[in-house]
Amino acid sequence: MLTKTPHLFDDATKVTASDSRWQGHTSQDYWAFVGPFGGATAATILRALVDHPQRSGDPLALTVNYCAPIAEGAFDLDVRLVKANRSSQHWCVEMTQGGDDIATLATAVFAERRPSWSHPQAPYPGATPFEKTQPYPKIAAPWVKQYDFRFVEGEPVPGKTPAAPNSYSKLWIADRVPRKIDALSLTAMSDAFFARIFHAKRELVPFGTVSLTTYFHVDADDLAAEDITRVLGAADAKIFHKSYGDQNGELWSPGGRLLATTTQIAYFKA
Amino acid sequence: MLTKTPHLFDDATKVTASDSRWQGHTSQDYWAFVGPFGGATAATILRALVDHPQRSGDPLALTVNYCAPIAEGAFDLDVRLVKANRSSQHWCVEMTQGGDDIATLATAVFAERRPSWSHPQAPYPGATPFEKTQPYPKIAAPWVKQYDFRFVEGEPVPGKTPAAPNSYSKLWIADRVPRKIDALSLTAMSDAFFARIFHAKRELVPFGTVSLTTYFHVDADDLAAEDITRVLGAADAKIFHKSYGDQNGELWSPGGRLLATTTQIAYFKA
Repeated sequence: MLTKTPHLFDDATKVTASDSRWQGHTSQDYWAFVGPFGGATAATILRALVDHPQRSGDPLALTVNYCAPIAEGAFDLDVRLVKANRSSQHWCVEMTQGGDDIATLATAVFAERRPSWSHPQAPYPGATPFEKTQPYPKIAAPWVKQYDFRFVEGEPVPGKTPAAPNSYSKLWIADRVPRKIDALSLTAMSDAFFARIFHAKRELVPFGTVSLTTYFHVDADDLAAEDITRVLGAADAKIFHKSYGDQNGELWSPGGRLLATTTQIAYFKA
Repeated sequence: MLTKTPHLFDDATKVTASDSRWQGHTSQDYWAFVGPFGGATAATILRALVDHPQRSGDPLALTVNYCAPIAEGAFDLDVRLVKANRSSQHWCVEMTQGGDDIATLATAVFAERRPSWSHPQAPYPGATPFEKTQPYPKIAAPWVKQYDFRFVEGEPVPGKTPAAPNSYSKLWIADRVPRKIDALSLTAMSDAFFARIFHAKRELVPFGTVSLTTYFHVDADDLAAEDITRVLGAADAKIFHKSYGDQNGELWSPGGRLLATTTQIAYFKA
C-alpha cells in the first residue's frame, strides 16, 4: 500500500540545508485558498528541525505563529538552537521570503523521552471503522484533496443549519495516498481539521489560523511500533468571540492510543 | 477591598524598559520550589509587551517555553516586534540572565478585536459559590501563599489514592490579596493549577512545565466590564507517558464567561 516514490507530502515539505539557514518551497499540491495549507508549513518547519544535524530526541511541542501571508514560491528558514540540556532542546525558527519580514515564527521542543509511570487519562472516543465510514467528497482546495477525510460525527453539510451551533467533529484522517504516520504528518494533520467556525456556522467565512500548538505524546519508537497510515481525529471549539475562536483537538491511533493533542486560535469574519 | 498600594503580584512582575531590552527581577513572594513560579515569569514577559510603546491591541495568544532554570535575581528581556499588520502584532521575547544562554523563550500575539458573531460553545462548569467553598490550606511554596485556592472538585489529599487516577480539578482561584483580574493575572493563573501528575498520582514528584500556551478570549474592555477578582478554573490531563504529561485548562468569570484557555506540556519523574 505504501508508496515507494516520494510521497507528495514529502515533496511538499522538503527542505535543503546550509548552516543555520534552510530553504523550502510552497507546494501547489498543498495549497489552500490564499496560501499554503498551514499544516504543511508547520510540518516543513518541523522537518528542518528533525533533519538538523544538531537535533537530538523527538518532537515534544511545536508552536507555529502565522504572522503574514506566504506567497507561492521559495522561502528561507532561519533555524536556531536556543538552548540544549541533557535530555531536551529548545528551537526557534523564522520563515522569510526574499529577505522580507518574518512570515512565520515557530518554537519547538525536542526531548529524549525516558520510561515512566504511564497513564492514558482521556478515553478513546471510538468510531465506526475507517472502511465502513463514507469518504468526504473532494472539495475545491488542493490540500483537502491530499487527505482522505471520513466523518464519524459532525460532517459539515452546507446550508443545513442545526438548532444550536455545534463545533464538534470526529473523523478519520489519512493521507489520500497512504503514508506511514510520523511526527511530520501528525503535525500537518493537527491543522487539518476544518475551521471550527465552518462547523458552528455551517458556512464558509474568511478564516485564518493565527497560532497553532501541537504536543506529541509518542516518540519515534512508539510511532514505529504503531505502524499506521491514519488517525482518528476529534476537535471542538470552546468559544467564538470578537473575531477570534479557538480549537482543541486530539489525534488517536486506530488502536486507541493518544498520539498528539493540538490547540489553535484563529481569526474569522462572521 | 482592592489594595491601593502596589499589589505583590505587580511588584513581582515589574519591568523597566530601555529600548528593546527590558529588565526584571525574580520575586521571593512568587518563588516555587527551585525557581520562580512559571506563571509569574509568563506574566512578567506579557507585562513587558503590554507596557511596550509599540504595543497595540490586547493579548490574544502567549506561548512560553521554559528552557532552563531561572536563578534568583535580575534578568533581561529582549523584546522584538516580529511583524505587525492593521489589526495584529507578533512578538518574540527572550529572557536571559547575566548574558548567559536563553532561559525562557516566548512568543505572543496581540490583536485589536472587532465585533463579530459570538458564541460560547463550551458550557460553564458551575461551582459552589466562592464564599461557601473551603480555602485550600497554606502550603510551603511561597507562590501558593499568594493565591486563595478553593477546590470545588478534585482537591488533592496526599496519601489518599483513588481507585483510578483522576487528574481533573475545578477550583476558585483568587489573588490572596484581592486584585482586579487582567490579562497579566489571567496569564499567571493559567499556570497556577497544581501539576496534573500530583493529582493523578496523589503525591509530589519532580515536575517542571516545559511549554505553556494561553489564549485570551476577552479583550481589555471585556475584562474591565467583568470587574472581578477571582476566576473559576478547571483543568485536566489527557495523558502521562514517557516522562511527559499534558494539561488543558479553562479560566471562567464567576458569571460564567470563558476568559482564557490554556494548555501545557510538563516533565515529571515518576
